[in-house]
Amino acid sequence: LPCARARTEGETVPVDSCALVHPAPSAAAALRIGLLGLGQVGAAVAARVPALAPGGRRLTIAAALVRDPASRQRPEGIPIVTRIDDVFARRPDVIVEVLGGVEPARTLVLEAIARRIPIVTANKSLLAHCGDELLAAARLAGVPLRCEASVVAGLPFLSSIARRHAFRSSLVSFSGIVNGTTNFVLSRMEGTGADYDAALDEARRRGFAEPDPTSDVQGIDALEKLVVLLRHLVPASVDPRAIEVDGIVAVTADDLRRARGLGGTIKPVVHAAWGAGGLEAFAGPAFVPREHPLARLEGVTNGVALRDRSGHSLLFAGPGAGPDVTAATILDDVAAALDAVTERPVEAERREASHGRVAAPATGWLITLDGSRPLPSGPEVADLLGSCGVWIERAVYERGDTAGPASFLTYACSRDRVQAAMRAIEAAACCRASAWRALRGDA
Amino acid sequence: LPCARARTEGETVPVDSCALVHPAPSAAAALRIGLLGLGQVGAAVAARVPALAPGGRRLTIAAALVRDPASRQRPEGIPIVTRIDDVFARRPDVIVEVLGGVEPARTLVLEAIARRIPIVTANKSLLAHCGDELLAAARLAGVPLRCEASVVAGLPFLSSIARRHAFRSSLVSFSGIVNGTTNFVLSRMEGTGADYDAALDEARRRGFAEPDPTSDVQGIDALEKLVVLLRHLVPASVDPRAIEVDGIVAVTADDLRRARGLGGTIKPVVHAAWGAGGLEAFAGPAFVPREHPLARLEGVTNGVALRDRSGHSLLFAGPGAGPDVTAATILDDVAAALDAVTERPVEAERREASHGRVAAPATGWLITLDGSRPLPSGPEVADLLGSCGVWIERAVYERGDTAGPASFLTYACSRDRVQAAMRAIEAAACCRASAWRALRGDA
Repeated sequence: LPCARARTEGETVPVDSCALVHPAPSAAAALRIGLLGLGQVGAAVAARVPALAPGGRRLTIAAALVRDPASRQRPEGIPIVTRIDDVFARRPDVIVEVLGGVEPARTLVLEAIARRIPIVTANKSLLAHCGDELLAAARLAGVPLRCEASVVAGLPFLSSIARRHAFRSSLVSFSGIVNGTTNFVLSRMEGTGADYDAALDEARRRGFAEPDPTSDVQGIDALEKLVVLLRHLVPASVDPRAIEVDGIVAVTADDLRRARGLGGTIKPVVHAAWGAGGLEAFAGPAFVPREHPLARLEGVTNGVALRDRSGHSLLFAGPGAGPDVTAATILDDVAAALDAVTERPVEAERREASHGRVAAPATGWLITLDGSRPLPSGPEVADLLGSCGVWIERAVYERGDTAGPASFLTYACSRDRVQAAMRAIEAAACCRASAWRALRGDA
Repeated sequence: LPCARARTEGETVPVDSCALVHPAPSAAAALRIGLLGLGQVGAAVAARVPALAPGGRRLTIAAALVRDPASRQRPEGIPIVTRIDDVFARRPDVIVEVLGGVEPARTLVLEAIARRIPIVTANKSLLAHCGDELLAAARLAGVPLRCEASVVAGLPFLSSIARRHAFRSSLVSFSGIVNGTTNFVLSRMEGTGADYDAALDEARRRGFAEPDPTSDVQGIDALEKLVVLLRHLVPASVDPRAIEVDGIVAVTADDLRRARGLGGTIKPVVHAAWGAGGLEAFAGPAFVPREHPLARLEGVTNGVALRDRSGHSLLFAGPGAGPDVTAATILDDVAAALDAVTERPVEAERREASHGRVAAPATGWLITLDGSRPLPSGPEVADLLGSCGVWIERAVYERGDTAGPASFLTYACSRDRVQAAMRAIEAAACCRASAWRALRGDA
């Protein structure tokens, strides 16, 4: 990816910490938005603009940039353009970027920053892959860059936490459900026993999944949002390619049934923990015990559970997406970006955790065994797992004896060990072995 | 109470929306806090100050004001004074007010505002009773006034929502648990079957209740926090004396058992709903169905559940109090107040709901009947209630017939009707009848 790392290694700047030299717009004149992208979210922003006036001011869309003007419905009274220069020519007070994807969004945002125009973006891909570059450019130019709508769009908490140093410095870990599509799919599979394809079809029919849901079901969307969360909450600047990611495609209704037997469910989570030992993180489906705050977030609901060093648990939960809630969050960011014209910069912070190194954590695992042939007995499985350094914390044998289908929760160990144990079991018993990471109730 | 209403009726200003003319303190010099009060929270602020540097800056306590210097442990290196002029003489950059109560806090804060010193307060009594007066004075003087620690101190969300106009304007109601002491007491009664006195004793032993818990158990603390929430979330300026308030003193373990039989529990809640019909609110114990997000908040945990006009539910949950989390929130407010030196004012907003009128809502009710004599049968109770305009939605008869102890959930009706119905039943059947408000799962 074409993202230069413009800042010193180890230096991380919270996202909305930009010094400001852009002149304050007049409160009397309508504030002009340059809208990049006119998809579902862009259209919702355009639709809300005439009705809404954050901070008592009028807003207007100066121009909307689209790739192909013929392919779009044209909202009334909004100039549609196809070249970025035609946006800049209309002198926007703020750029709202809702194109999605890295390019051309990156190039266009950099051009806007060079012209000292404040930026509001909902684009987690852009932030995950080019956050360092964009923030460095924005900081240098003294331009605010707001991105509250990029993660859990319906629930504003990201930028306020990023600015609260004492609060944030007490945090040690977080777990989140940040992708509504996959939470819906797994919730339906859990609730109705539907298989993956049927649940995904229902999500599509109800508008909860894209026609091409690859980015969601393979965990890419959650991974990119995890990177944005790390930047705001740790803060750490991490390359998404350095983080373990897994999709939900392989989760079966039977896995969910077994998770229930072990006192929990499987949720599409992101997780990170940090401290003296460095930063650990992963994105993927994980066993979540019933007592964990994320276990109760059903359907398309998103949430982020934070933990502080005293063991306090904090939960932010709400709608993750949807054009209307995203548009509201974007318009509040517009107001904040325009208010920020006189904000003081937050000092850059240096921390061990912000070097961009990230490890896959040792966690517990949910292991399920299936096969047509007789399965190994409990003591045999325990012996095989133990020989790989994987220790069982809890087991459920479905036939009441020890030789039927079985599921296990293990104590914390590395992915390498569990994968070696899976291979050993599959070789010894000719069965299918699956392993999913497991969160603890207090993590 | 001696609070002048300095602003025009109907004009409400979100709490941290102050214009600013106070000069920006130098980033190099240590920033000086004038600390008013040195109780548990004040001592925790003093203890954190040397270790912590929000925004990369050093902080120092310029002076701590106490009533009686002999009665306090004296934190090392902090000048203790007993007269406010000795605080001002040390030229504080910011005043942190943690005295609690209305006076002398009000007078001292007004003096600080007159000297154009930014204010951070955790004092919900002060804000509930004198919020209009203090905010008008702060606004006139161009001084920031921050109060994130006054409600759900461990979970910063109040000021960020107050500033997000598009988000806030989509809200239609909220329910909250904002008092940890009473949530702990009812949780223990529910979990262990302990009676009220035993549960309160345990709360005292574990440091979750004051030696004199009157303000908590009579609902005063929750009521004052409700007023602060109304100011930030609606926004509405309401006199606390205009709001229905009830304590938890009369809740019995038996009431909690019956609530469980009806699919919920009793929680110490605050609730408000607003719209074209005006503003409704109450503070007091209420039946909360199991599916409601507040039903799962146990022990001293606090939380606020918001609802928007599309039916989305949002939850903010976390520790409500405790010296350490409160001190962290206060210090973040200090940083924000000092950053705010160049913030633009948010325009004052005018709304129907902000006139200060507040009604007691029509809600469902949990009604319980007890007595040594035979109780009236189900049809008899339904007839008595119905004659007062109170209609049963769900009934549980404990002996399997209709003449034993019984509990009912009713459809929504006014407090007047329910009180009339209670009197009618008690007169007719010589039994004890209790009625608690009931939230719906989606409210």
